[in-house]
Amino acid sequence: MLSQKMLELGSKKSTIREIFEFGKKRAEIVGKENIYDFSIGNPNVPAPVSVKNAILEILENENPTAIHSYTSAQGDDNVRSTITKSINKRFGTSFKKENLYMTVGAAASISICFKALTNEGDEFITFAPFFPEYKCFVEGAGGKLIIVDANTQNFQINFDEFKKKINDKTKAVIVNSPNNPSGVIYSEETILKLVSILEEKSAEYGHVIYLISDEPYREIAYDNVDVPYLTKYYKNTLVCYSYSKSLSLPGERIGYIIIPSEIEDFKDTYAAICGGGRVLGFVNAPSLFQKVVAKCADETADISIYERNRNLLYDGLIKMGYKCVKPEGAFYLFPQSLEKDAKAFCEKAKRYDLLLVPGDDFGCPGHVRISYCVQTEQIINSLPIFEKLAKEYGINS
Amino acid sequence: MLSQKMLELGSKKSTIREIFEFGKKRAEIVGKENIYDFSIGNPNVPAPVSVKNAILEILENENPTAIHSYTSAQGDDNVRSTITKSINKRFGTSFKKENLYMTVGAAASISICFKALTNEGDEFITFAPFFPEYKCFVEGAGGKLIIVDANTQNFQINFDEFKKKINDKTKAVIVNSPNNPSGVIYSEETILKLVSILEEKSAEYGHVIYLISDEPYREIAYDNVDVPYLTKYYKNTLVCYSYSKSLSLPGERIGYIIIPSEIEDFKDTYAAICGGGRVLGFVNAPSLFQKVVAKCADETADISIYERNRNLLYDGLIKMGYKCVKPEGAFYLFPQSLEKDAKAFCEKAKRYDLLLVPGDDFGCPGHVRISYCVQTEQIINSLPIFEKLAKEYGINS
Repeated sequence: MLSQKMLELGSKKSTIREIFEFGKKRAEIVGKENIYDFSIGNPNVPAPVSVKNAILEILENENPTAIHSYTSAQGDDNVRSTITKSINKRFGTSFKKENLYMTVGAAASISICFKALTNEGDEFITFAPFFPEYKCFVEGAGGKLIIVDANTQNFQINFDEFKKKINDKTKAVIVNSPNNPSGVIYSEETILKLVSILEEKSAEYGHVIYLISDEPYREIAYDNVDVPYLTKYYKNTLVCYSYSKSLSLPGERIGYIIIPSEIEDFKDTYAAICGGGRVLGFVNAPSLFQKVVAKCADETADISIYERNRNLLYDGLIKMGYKCVKPEGAFYLFPQSLEKDAKAFCEKAKRYDLLLVPGDDFGCPGHVRISYCVQTEQIINSLPIFEKLAKEYGINS
Repeated sequence: MLSQKMLELGSKKSTIREIFEFGKKRAEIVGKENIYDFSIGNPNVPAPVSVKNAILEILENENPTAIHSYTSAQGDDNVRSTITKSINKRFGTSFKKENLYMTVGAAASISICFKALTNEGDEFITFAPFFPEYKCFVEGAGGKLIIVDANTQNFQINFDEFKKKINDKTKAVIVNSPNNPSGVIYSEETILKLVSILEEKSAEYGHVIYLISDEPYREIAYDNVDVPYLTKYYKNTLVCYSYSKSLSLPGERIGYIIIPSEIEDFKDTYAAICGGGRVLGFVNAPSLFQKVVAKCADETADISIYERNRNLLYDGLIKMGYKCVKPEGAFYLFPQSLEKDAKAFCEKAKRYDLLLVPGDDFGCPGHVRISYCVQTEQIINSLPIFEKLAKEYGINS
């Protein structure tokens, strides 16, 4: 009598959550310092001090009723102006507040886009490895998620398979760069190739194929690598953003969607986004944090900590003989599993209280995700464990 | 190519929003003090000072990473314990944290319930006058909203029509007491009668008919009138709550759902609620405000201001010859329109910059909603306008 689909989705915890809960229980027994938990993507770097200062300043100086009041569904006008100005300055775009819709975080941004776009029978294509909740959101909106297998050489796009899977029912393509779980950033070359296929196929099928850019890790990029801003390459792009990672505010649920003026039927598209947010029950993005992120629009948490962690862990693993595409962003490493069955490999790691997530859930078997948004000390202490594990498999550095 | 339904829902502003926007524009021309805007249910009473203190205390004393971190999807454990204890103390219930699921506000609470319960073809019954967004949420979840006409005598339930409309496809009944827009509180007699029908029909049809209690106005009740706590009358009740009104935090989007242990298939129901929240993209209720409302769980904003407003406005209108059921809660008055067509009446009122909402959108033509969550001064200044309007219709006090 209950919705069987919701029952199923609510009963089956994600693999990541299960491993995380296991880690919490083990920590109670053997002590937190003896658990090497790399399961969850919860930023360990605190929000910048400007977040605290912004909250204090707002509480001190603004009208107490206005601070916590409803905003327009699309977000507070001043907040939207400030944020678009910051985006324009940083990425050379020219958005106005009318192009921005504030949301209750990245999951909201994506699920609103799916809801706004989906008609019965629509397909959405994503590229493995991919964030597993996409399936849940696409199906919730009434669409179908189509997965293109990974290009395991470098985790750029597997274009051969993409060309086979794109078809007349394709409503949109979702990309996530910097990528969770591979940490890879799509190169400009990849983007240009993707865009040329989207344009060709849109023309062939006689309807727009949208590009949804899910980019909560945009600011977490290393080695001065550029993260192409996709609206500059393809006008029918919706940008989904969240401050969860850049400002370390994952619990506060605050983000936005960019709808460029150049998009096909801009006014209607913006309206459909508003409709999606309304139907799903979001009302407005949390009001205090709208004001906070506007005040901190040009800031990030201390990203250098993640970069140090990446270097330590990547260099360490490579030296031991692990095989891994070097990630240029986000806070994940996605090495090959030391046996074909990544789940079995993770079980072996677990015996050392080393908690990794098998790539299967990300649509990429034979790999494991290591979330290195942890204390650097944990990385240092875990290296001998990774080495023991490698030796168990007869791999010698 | 866009979802036509979302486009429609996003293009057509609610009547309330339209009137509200009109008022803002007029205020720019003739001055805010000359606009008698009773259109919107945005609390004018500030949050209690304990909210500010709670925020400051959390920022000062808690781990900065933990404050803004993801919580479990169902909410922080300590928060859920604290809130259930407060509910138990105030309403004589015996909930545990396992019965509570924190949400991103009332709209989220309701839309999650609909999503968790709905299978193809399901009907949900509500009683006019009713909150118009219900239709949007029910249809978004794939169900159909069935409206029982108002009992305009006293705005309790029209049981004759309810008995005609309940049927084998009825999945749940939604009540909203204290009611928006009538301000009426369902009496214990009404609840007992409702429950007896639900029990009889559940047995007859061989399946549960759920009761969804949407109660953001629970604490806004006057004259010591009791607001029955529905889980004590009917075990298959889901309680949807929000702190928008009680703590004047409408923009922060924070509330909860109560799933009583006695509900049919408790474990599965709780899981389906988790599935609903997951699919819609809520992730978790805003983390800082989870902690804030837990610290303020026993508090409310200064409700006495609303009571004073109600008395002034109700007494004033009755003296002038308006006809109105006396509201015992919420912050709305729902008098009869002075002509049959409430929309025409509201247009006449608008000429005096007196902004009222026709009852048609609430499923109750011939009435108008007056939101009196405004400065008391506005009420005092508006009374001569209400009087002029009455005289225009030849009504003499």
